[in-house]
Amino acid sequence: MASGPQTISFLSDFGTDDESVGIVKSVIRAIAPEATVIDLTHGIGPHDVRAGSLALARAVQYVAPGVILAVVDPGVGTERRAVAVEVGDGIATFVGPDNGLLASAVAMAGGATRAVHLNESEYHLAAPGATFAGRDVFAPVAAHLCAGVDLDDLGDDIDPAGLLPGTLPLSRTEEGRLVAEVLWVDRYGNLQLNLDPDEVAPLGERLTVRAEGMVRTAGWARTYDAIGAGEVGLVVDAYGLVSLCMARHPAAAELGLATGDAITLEPATDGAGTSQPVTLGARRPRPEVTP
Amino acid sequence: MASGPQTISFLSDFGTDDESVGIVKSVIRAIAPEATVIDLTHGIGPHDVRAGSLALARAVQYVAPGVILAVVDPGVGTERRAVAVEVGDGIATFVGPDNGLLASAVAMAGGATRAVHLNESEYHLAAPGATFAGRDVFAPVAAHLCAGVDLDDLGDDIDPAGLLPGTLPLSRTEEGRLVAEVLWVDRYGNLQLNLDPDEVAPLGERLTVRAEGMVRTAGWARTYDAIGAGEVGLVVDAYGLVSLCMARHPAAAELGLATGDAITLEPATDGAGTSQPVTLGARRPRPEVTP
Amino acid sequence: MASGPQTISFLSDFGTDDESVGIVKSVIRAIAPEATVIDLTHGIGPHDVRAGSLALARAVQYVAPGVILAVVDPGVGTERRAVAVEVGDGIATFVGPDNGLLASAVAMAGGATRAVHLNESEYHLAAPGATFAGRDVFAPVAAHLCAGVDLDDLGDDIDPAGLLPGTLPLSRTEEGRLVAEVLWVDRYGNLQLNLDPDEVAPLGERLTVRAEGMVRTAGWARTYDAIGAGEVGLVVDAYGLVSLCMARHPAAAELGLATGDAITLEPATDGAGTSQPVTLGARRPRPEVTP
Repeated sequence: MASGPQTISFLSDFGTDDESVGIVKSVIRAIAPEATVIDLTHGIGPHDVRAGSLALARAVQYVAPGVILAVVDPGVGTERRAVAVEVGDGIATFVGPDNGLLASAVAMAGGATRAVHLNESEYHLAAPGATFAGRDVFAPVAAHLCAGVDLDDLGDDIDPAGLLPGTLPLSRTEEGRLVAEVLWVDRYGNLQLNLDPDEVAPLGERLTVRAEGMVRTAGWARTYDAIGAGEVGLVVDAYGLVSLCMARHPAAAELGLATGDAITLEPATDGAGTSQPVTLGARRPRPEVTP
Repeated sequence: MASGPQTISFLSDFGTDDESVGIVKSVIRAIAPEATVIDLTHGIGPHDVRAGSLALARAVQYVAPGVILAVVDPGVGTERRAVAVEVGDGIATFVGPDNGLLASAVAMAGGATRAVHLNESEYHLAAPGATFAGRDVFAPVAAHLCAGVDLDDLGDDIDPAGLLPGTLPLSRTEEGRLVAEVLWVDRYGNLQLNLDPDEVAPLGERLTVRAEGMVRTAGWARTYDAIGAGEVGLVVDAYGLVSLCMARHPAAAELGLATGDAITLEPATDGAGTSQPVTLGARRPRPEVTP
Repeated sequence: MASGPQTISFLSDFGTDDESVGIVKSVIRAIAPEATVIDLTHGIGPHDVRAGSLALARAVQYVAPGVILAVVDPGVGTERRAVAVEVGDGIATFVGPDNGLLASAVAMAGGATRAVHLNESEYHLAAPGATFAGRDVFAPVAAHLCAGVDLDDLGDDIDPAGLLPGTLPLSRTEEGRLVAEVLWVDRYGNLQLNLDPDEVAPLGERLTVRAEGMVRTAGWARTYDAIGAGEVGLVVDAYGLVSLCMARHPAAAELGLATGDAITLEPATDGAGTSQPVTLGARRPRPEVTP
């Protein structure tokens, strides 16, 4: 019966404290009963398009062929377009808002081969309000793709070059230091940086890591447990990026760092053989309260 | 092999921090291996029958035909009855405790066409304690329905009129004001009220909204982003009810309001054309601490 | 097409705030598209092998035949072995780290009948780093089992007797008191103890329960609601263990107790017929702050 793809990978900022995700899946079930929905995550912070975009980019190389439904949509109901973006000549189709959320993942998947504006309302649900496009527009469109509807039937063709680009922060070199940013703090408190190992390698075996109110020396480690107790290590993480980590301890809490924070890296001045960490302040200073 | 419905939509207050939901699904898998379980939500507050009832009522019009398994059951193991309630002459069957949880959703689905008391223990699991009816009674019954067991075999027929009713709060008019209640605060801080747009429309384009320690002026908006920055808007939400919202900001936090709080609406006295919000106090006042 | 089992029951400490669980499921989908993944829970505390082990042990008697994928793995990438452990001559196969996580559940399932060290890398994913064995080792191995790969092909046979044992805390008697430990605090604040009803029964109908800074009298109850308001009751819980509970109120918060806390039980001295609770301190005392 179904002639389209049979997997919908679903990411949103809906959380799971209420029934929103369940309703979206119910809508899909009604239109494409054979499709399997894989939840990538619904824990993206409310309206945090950047975090959603990064999570989607990390996941995309593993995601099953089919439909990728992604909804972080603070501008829901406004003139921001609802779109479907095909990659790999049809290997996968992203469905979501044209607000930058999809851009990095689309690029990592080789770029868009087709895109449509989802303005063909016969493939949407009628709804009392304009505030839940995940349920009323994106879910039915994703399901109709699984049920065999062609992308072209879902709306007007648009030029993929006109889709809103993503805004991944780039690292840079400044006064001899590598200036980077914390992309993501994982559940274990590891700090993923926007740095390839190749960028960092020339700085040597031991680096000085600085952020507001914090200086530490860090060496490279292949695993978390290879980092000395209480020390900070540089690990090539599961996505091939450099992460700041500690062994069985959350580096984010220890260093007082969070997503979006700037950090710098430079060769350590404590001598190549020294493994003692230099710590000026382990936590972000709090504003002083004077009576 | 299976001759019953093949979708179980599942709502509970179990949370997902432990294995309870997984165990319920494992029980279902053993009895009805072909059935698909759709999690509506498990984030209902512990024992919060009212919140579960409202979530179920919001979801019910989207839920797939089949079995709706709903468990928020503070009185588990006592004389509160375990029931299955059929609607639409068999389009869907609710399975859960007879404690008001199911009532609003059953009503929205057109009312019960049959009901049984789940006292036929051959369709339950033997268990050491009486504290996990979700696993031992409701899950196996839901699965047996999918496996083709008839509702009548699951226990004694009961009169649907004798099921415990729900307790949806009604709005009322008092001294010229519409008195409403916050039904639900969604993840974005929007405040869903127990008000149809038709009830509110006669009050005009701009309204004065009052709650304990808070007065604001609010106008209508079709989308969140159409509300002016820092202003509060009235939006017909995705369920057709009136919500108090702000643009990309949580109205609940801004106004200091939570589920169950009372608010009143009346025509604004600041003149139809004025869009300036009148704010006496943006947050719920805290008790003063005197030394 | 698939010749192996078709259910993977999945437990981890990944949480669901990011895409890790979704990526693992995507990897499985690519290798074993017909397999159904049942999430037992991903809410185990980060690196909390003991809590994961207990959750797995509570779940195991309900889990569907097939593969049980369990990942709480603080030593990821180190010399701790990745293993697959067969129970019941193939009824189920546990896949995870050899760090004690699997031990109690394996024992409850009758003990290991075969085990292999997962060192055959052709069944793993190539990956940039060594930090996400859930994605790169355990998920593909679990999926290959579903796709029909034999356990023996996944790596070298190892002696199950050499697997790391679990560390379930044992109760003991000391100076006439039963000394127990809080194994788990459920979502409702019930405190599961490491006590069988048979151990506790000889102490009589009413017991004195002591923990640091807390003394209460507790009687037996079959259901939560049968406990008097404000009183603490002993309930044989859904797993056949003794739990300390209150009616519609979290006993953990009331008594100031958490997982791992020691408590003692002894016959109550307040007379068999007295139901009045004796309370010296309802909460864990806080350190006094003196100026």
